[in-house]
Amino acid sequence: MITDVERLIQLLAKLPGLGPRSARRAVLDMIKRPEANMRPLARALLEVADSIKTCAVCHNIDTHSPCGICQDPRRPQDALCVVADVADLWALERARAFRGQYHVLGGTLSAMEGRGPEQLNIDSLLRRLHEAVERARPVREVILALGATVEGQTTLHYLQDRLVSFDCEVSVLAQGLPVGGELDYLDDGTLTLALQARRRYGQN
Amino acid sequence: MITDVERLIQLLAKLPGLGPRSARRAVLDMIKRPEANMRPLARALLEVADSIKTCAVCHNIDTHSPCGICQDPRRPQDALCVVADVADLWALERARAFRGQYHVLGGTLSAMEGRGPEQLNIDSLLRRLHEAVERARPVREVILALGATVEGQTTLHYLQDRLVSFDCEVSVLAQGLPVGGELDYLDDGTLTLALQARRRYGQN
Repeated sequence: MITDVERLIQLLAKLPGLGPRSARRAVLDMIKRPEANMRPLARALLEVADSIKTCAVCHNIDTHSPCGICQDPRRPQDALCVVADVADLWALERARAFRGQYHVLGGTLSAMEGRGPEQLNIDSLLRRLHEAVERARPVREVILALGATVEGQTTLHYLQDRLVSFDCEVSVLAQGLPVGGELDYLDDGTLTLALQARRRYGQN
Repeated sequence: MITDVERLIQLLAKLPGLGPRSARRAVLDMIKRPEANMRPLARALLEVADSIKTCAVCHNIDTHSPCGICQDPRRPQDALCVVADVADLWALERARAFRGQYHVLGGTLSAMEGRGPEQLNIDSLLRRLHEAVERARPVREVILALGATVEGQTTLHYLQDRLVSFDCEVSVLAQGLPVGGELDYLDDGTLTLALQARRRYGQN
């Protein structure tokens, strides 16, 4: 009916989590107050598109490269957390769960989607570890913070193999009950894992 | 962490149907391909913000006023469909359910949200009907296409009262089984209504 509006709906509907129906609702909501919502959103999109850079060191996203995390002198250099996506890095930063360095793979290995090791930032990870050794400041621990999915675990096993030649500890995230998790709502796999990985009460 | 990106996430998260989590996912997805997605979306937003107008006749949204529907000479002038929102008008147009004129109220009466008749486009509706009578081309039927909610039905009853002085038929949407509706998934109210409004098999 209205071509401009239809095109806007189509573009919004392409975003993950939005379909044509919610895109239409969003556009109708914005149209009611174009100055309050539509123009600021357009400007914010352009600003981010202009300013965004991928960090040459860790492949994080920031307005400069190397990114703020890589440049932060207060963060320890001897612990490196490997994540699949920038979203995972952000989640860990929001949780203030980790204070060291990151490396973003840019995805996980996936035979289904034809994504092999050369499509991921694995070479640059190994190069970073090599360079750290050469600078006589080796990385003490590499944490493989990958999801408990088939693809996450496949990537994890592949990386473990590639990391054996380095003199560093390789660790993975614990699996078990999520915080607030109730037993009768948990899947069998998680329950079994949580039971197998049980620890003595009072121990860490 | 990154102020530009955080602001973009906040603006996106304000849209109906998107929360902070899905806004973050959407932004991360767009950042990967700024030229393919981000800039076109920004341009589409600005184009719509620049071009959008509210129709002075029916309060529909279009790039010109009166809108394409009001200006279409092929659409009958003697049937007027009253809807709460532009989204409802679009839904009826998508379904090709109605070929006459529309009038968008801009909401429903709501004591809860303090929305009275003066906040809705009711005066302009009555003026339209008056003018049609004066031009000797009276509206034959007014269809009150309002939702089967408390607020929709309140608005419907109020409008019925205001329309008695006009010599036109006032009709409302049928209630009953939705297409594809299975009885055991329907709420009691709809089932009761569908039974009460039953019709002889083969009749329209």
